Amino acid sequence: MFGVTILGNNSALPAYDRHPTAQVITLNDGLFLFDCGEGTQMQMNKYKIRRSRIQHIFISHLHGDHYFGLAGLLTSMSLSDRKAPLHVYAPQDLELILKLQVMAYDTKLPYDLFFHPIQGAGVLVDEPQFSVSCFKVYHRIDAWGFLIKEKRKPRKIDAEKARDYPAIPLLFYEHLQNGEDYIAPDGTVIKNEMVTYANIPPKSYAYSADTIFSPSIAEHIQGVTMLYHEATYLKDLEERAASRHHCTTVQAATIARLAGAQKLLIGHFSSQYDNDKLYLFEEEAKEVFPSVQLALEGVTYEV
Amino acid sequence: MFGVTILGNNSALPAYDRHPTAQVITLNDGLFLFDCGEGTQMQMNKYKIRRSRIQHIFISHLHGDHYFGLAGLLTSMSLSDRKAPLHVYAPQDLELILKLQVMAYDTKLPYDLFFHPIQGAGVLVDEPQFSVSCFKVYHRIDAWGFLIKEKRKPRKIDAEKARDYPAIPLLFYEHLQNGEDYIAPDGTVIKNEMVTYANIPPKSYAYSADTIFSPSIAEHIQGVTMLYHEATYLKDLEERAASRHHCTTVQAATIARLAGAQKLLIGHFSSQYDNDKLYLFEEEAKEVFPSVQLALEGVTYEV
Repeated sequence: MFGVTILGNNSALPAYDRHPTAQVITLNDGLFLFDCGEGTQMQMNKYKIRRSRIQHIFISHLHGDHYFGLAGLLTSMSLSDRKAPLHVYAPQDLELILKLQVMAYDTKLPYDLFFHPIQGAGVLVDEPQFSVSCFKVYHRIDAWGFLIKEKRKPRKIDAEKARDYPAIPLLFYEHLQNGEDYIAPDGTVIKNEMVTYANIPPKSYAYSADTIFSPSIAEHIQGVTMLYHEATYLKDLEERAASRHHCTTVQAATIARLAGAQKLLIGHFSSQYDNDKLYLFEEEAKEVFPSVQLALEGVTYEV
Repeated sequence: MFGVTILGNNSALPAYDRHPTAQVITLNDGLFLFDCGEGTQMQMNKYKIRRSRIQHIFISHLHGDHYFGLAGLLTSMSLSDRKAPLHVYAPQDLELILKLQVMAYDTKLPYDLFFHPIQGAGVLVDEPQFSVSCFKVYHRIDAWGFLIKEKRKPRKIDAEKARDYPAIPLLFYEHLQNGEDYIAPDGTVIKNEMVTYANIPPKSYAYSADTIFSPSIAEHIQGVTMLYHEATYLKDLEERAASRHHCTTVQAATIARLAGAQKLLIGHFSSQYDNDKLYLFEEEAKEVFPSVQLALEGVTYEV
């Protein structure tokens, strides 16, 4: 399973029961939190997301609607007696704020909290099956997008064909999965593709929240499976969007097209639009890019 | 109107759609916020509390369930272009946290934010018609209770009786309201109570949240009209309550009795009790003090 569950899809001023930004990415057994606006832990309760399963939290920038829920989440993990370490990746200035908030409690967290300051574009997490990296986006203050990518998956053994080559020892199967040919002791070569087939291609998810329109973003996420891009305003407010370092529907869709993305998810809707207006966001974005979905709270989208 | 609207009645770990502590006190035209747990601004939206009307915010102590919603509220006031000054009264350590959070925005608040560190028991706000003072309560960290008191209200002129004394000039009526006798130029004395009667007695509301059981609290709030006191646990968990610096139902009711309060409101219910168990809180407290109400979210209680 590779999916994203939306916990907040609104811009900074909460309205119409829409919440500030937070999303949970599920990849295999892991949960990753991208941003953590105020009320994120309550949204997790509501949508049955188990906070204990989160190991990595990524904060895009230090506007409150993207991190004011973090201290509460860390505290609730503490009150639930979490033991597993937790990693937070965020702009440097958050570290002191969190430290002061934890210090005010006058108790020690029962788990290790590792703070990783984001100091430039690059890889943040590198695991055997996936990686998470960050890339620059352009907001009023330092801001980062995130890209979570599955690594190439091992090839699958074609059991039926493999039966035709009993000479291949079982121990070599792992090498077959990695794409190697089998060379028998007598020099016979059994080409890899005669006994294996390609696994499903690795998928990727990019998160670009709170940025002015910038085609450079597309360069960092070429061929991404699913892109979440902020679309704060409808297209008629392009000027307002630019003045506030945000994007319109059409601009978000343009980034998806330039990136060659397969799917686009849009959110961070301005509080000036009530829920009855949101269908317009989808309509407008589709004029530029065909596969668009609205980021709706509580909904899980398959990457 | 003198009332309190409950925005959050749960202890630290949000559960059963109950929220961390926050209450809005309405007195005449003013709104006062006592504590501001995470999600307070959303609760204000839900219950139609106009945040623009709040001028004074009081934070009892620096456990997150009593202040993690403050930065978001201040930010939303900023995004709504508030101009009116705002006063925050809280333990000193909150000042730096708020400053760092505001600084991270790299924009100036459009209103003046005055931070008043609470450095000891005493008067925090002194206005012609009311005062707010703080008193010590006893938690794991420095913690304060608050007492908001109407001042003695001017006596009412009895229009019918006043007609019998046309010698009293209209300009003297204000003195009559303040309880003075009228002395005519010829030395005749018209006693105050001959033309006035007492106004309704001034009311008061005390807030004592997050404290271990301490009879000393009752001394500070003698004769209070309505007391809100935390009651985190049912009476069978007195030991757990003490170890966590909290109170039981019976302990909260005992403080109300010792204070000679007219009414008691209890809240800060532990997450170990679901909503179906809350009636037990009321039942138990009533064994000790007759006039008890549960603090329920969204409900306004008249002081």
